[in-house]
Amino acid sequence: MAGMSVAVIGATGAVGSEMLKVLEQRSFPLENVRALATSRSAGQTLIYKGRKVLIEDIEKADLRGVHFALFAGGEIASSVHVPRAVEAGAVAIDNSSTFRMNPDVPLVVPEVNPEALRAHKGIIANPNCSTIQMVVVLKPIHDAAGIERVVVSTYQSVSGGGREAMEELLSQSRDVLDGKEVEPKIMPKRIAFNIFPHIADFGENGYTGEETKMILETQKIMGDDSIRVTATTARVPVLIGHSESVNIQTRKKITAARAREILSHAPGICVQDDPKTKSYPTPVEAAGRDEVFVGRIREDLSHPLGLELWIVSDNLRKGAALNAVQIAETMLKMGLVK
Amino acid sequence: MAGMSVAVIGATGAVGSEMLKVLEQRSFPLENVRALATSRSAGQTLIYKGRKVLIEDIEKADLRGVHFALFAGGEIASSVHVPRAVEAGAVAIDNSSTFRMNPDVPLVVPEVNPEALRAHKGIIANPNCSTIQMVVVLKPIHDAAGIERVVVSTYQSVSGGGREAMEELLSQSRDVLDGKEVEPKIMPKRIAFNIFPHIADFGENGYTGEETKMILETQKIMGDDSIRVTATTARVPVLIGHSESVNIQTRKKITAARAREILSHAPGICVQDDPKTKSYPTPVEAAGRDEVFVGRIREDLSHPLGLELWIVSDNLRKGAALNAVQIAETMLKMGLVK
Repeated sequence: MAGMSVAVIGATGAVGSEMLKVLEQRSFPLENVRALATSRSAGQTLIYKGRKVLIEDIEKADLRGVHFALFAGGEIASSVHVPRAVEAGAVAIDNSSTFRMNPDVPLVVPEVNPEALRAHKGIIANPNCSTIQMVVVLKPIHDAAGIERVVVSTYQSVSGGGREAMEELLSQSRDVLDGKEVEPKIMPKRIAFNIFPHIADFGENGYTGEETKMILETQKIMGDDSIRVTATTARVPVLIGHSESVNIQTRKKITAARAREILSHAPGICVQDDPKTKSYPTPVEAAGRDEVFVGRIREDLSHPLGLELWIVSDNLRKGAALNAVQIAETMLKMGLVK
Repeated sequence: MAGMSVAVIGATGAVGSEMLKVLEQRSFPLENVRALATSRSAGQTLIYKGRKVLIEDIEKADLRGVHFALFAGGEIASSVHVPRAVEAGAVAIDNSSTFRMNPDVPLVVPEVNPEALRAHKGIIANPNCSTIQMVVVLKPIHDAAGIERVVVSTYQSVSGGGREAMEELLSQSRDVLDGKEVEPKIMPKRIAFNIFPHIADFGENGYTGEETKMILETQKIMGDDSIRVTATTARVPVLIGHSESVNIQTRKKITAARAREILSHAPGICVQDDPKTKSYPTPVEAAGRDEVFVGRIREDLSHPLGLELWIVSDNLRKGAALNAVQIAETMLKMGLVK
């Protein structure tokens, strides 16, 4: 199992550079790491475990010999180069939405549906960040009580929009503090000291692309189309870490105490739920951490089978880079890649 | 009807100074305005319509001759001085939560339940900011289709916590941008580039005071205890303007188009709902405005009787100062104060 060659595509972006950081931090059996990007960054170097790594041009790179190709270069790069990576013999783990709803492509969160990996045909899709952290928490509750319906409102950080969106929040914030006028560039509206309910394009039914992903991806990952989901996704002036206010309705009654107990033994979850000591998750505290944090667990006063949850996670790590690396680790453990 | 004497208690605070601004801007039949505060500010002056007004010490002030006493000095000031104002013959319109759930005290949003004013005994309670903007939108829908259940998640600006909370957001933001460590002072956690689901104290059932207010006040203002409400309230790094993601379930089916039409003719509401032209409400755009803005009106894909709404309003104006002045105006119009 030693001697894996891993390529990161989009290595200079917010998610790609986090993938390299995650690979460094975990005991992944790595022999060789390759960093790929567009011609704009090609020829430059980045540092991995103290050594310089040359950034290769994805257009020209020969991908033979790569075991895992981790894609974080966006939809266009994925649609062009994922098939090339598979053709060259790699397993492509793709962070874009390109292949997520393709019935031939497993959409995987290792804590939730690792078995879906067995049917892979070379491509594994990494789910949307806001979906990943939610399903990690929903799964143990679904197993215990059955989830009937989910009403979620998100508070999503700008890093979900990439490095340029992070820079826009910082520079706009400084300008507002200095009393200057600000104009949105990357993001659809001003984000400094503001909020907007607009992530990805709007569909005919009024839902945004991000909201539609949360609905469809949740059903696919949970393997249960009968789970009804509605979502409102909003961008907030936070750099890293998505927060979610999640209202669920279960099939069987589950108390807050029982939910807390189940979640505290579930994989990948850290329960922070002692409000009297100010223990509840916040994005600043979750940033840089691997766990999905959950708190504010309450029985819903408006419904006998309702439960309220507050879920926070680092969207670049569990919501993207870490989940992709965990997929590779799980495939190795299951003997799906040798 | 001319010659009203109005006193603003807590005149130097975020809401009190907004009350004076609202009185200046509207054609309120005002003969005399008095500004009151604690002994800390007493003796100083503030400017009202270009003239200096001496700030009086509320402890020592003689309130006889005042028609309307607008209270924005917090719970302690209200519990002590509201009875004094009523004793002196004034109608007290109180922005604190002290008297809101008292069955002898009308809790009023003029667009929703003006008739409740007729039963007043000297005190009118001004509802919680996050409740006011929600019920202005819920009422016309309730009249048309009956509201069964409300699941709301809020994105509340720091001005709800007063002027010091606004200063804390600004100074913390500057410190974070300058790479300095920050420590929360007024607010329970860091708010710069962060979010926390903690507004007011936690109750035994896990709901915060703010969440409980949204439940109980909504039922009282709407005059219908059968409306089931659950709420998660979060503080966000925004200066002015509360945003709310509101999921409702109606008794009769109402389409998004019909809801949009009803709301566009309802009092106090501005529908901003053309997502393809980026028309949806945001707090920065709502700040300084009088209307309650609503957008993202969608039929809920998870429930046949569900509707999604995104509601934003200036919490200092419609959520506090403006609503209080509108209560006074409505009482004059109804002949309840002469």
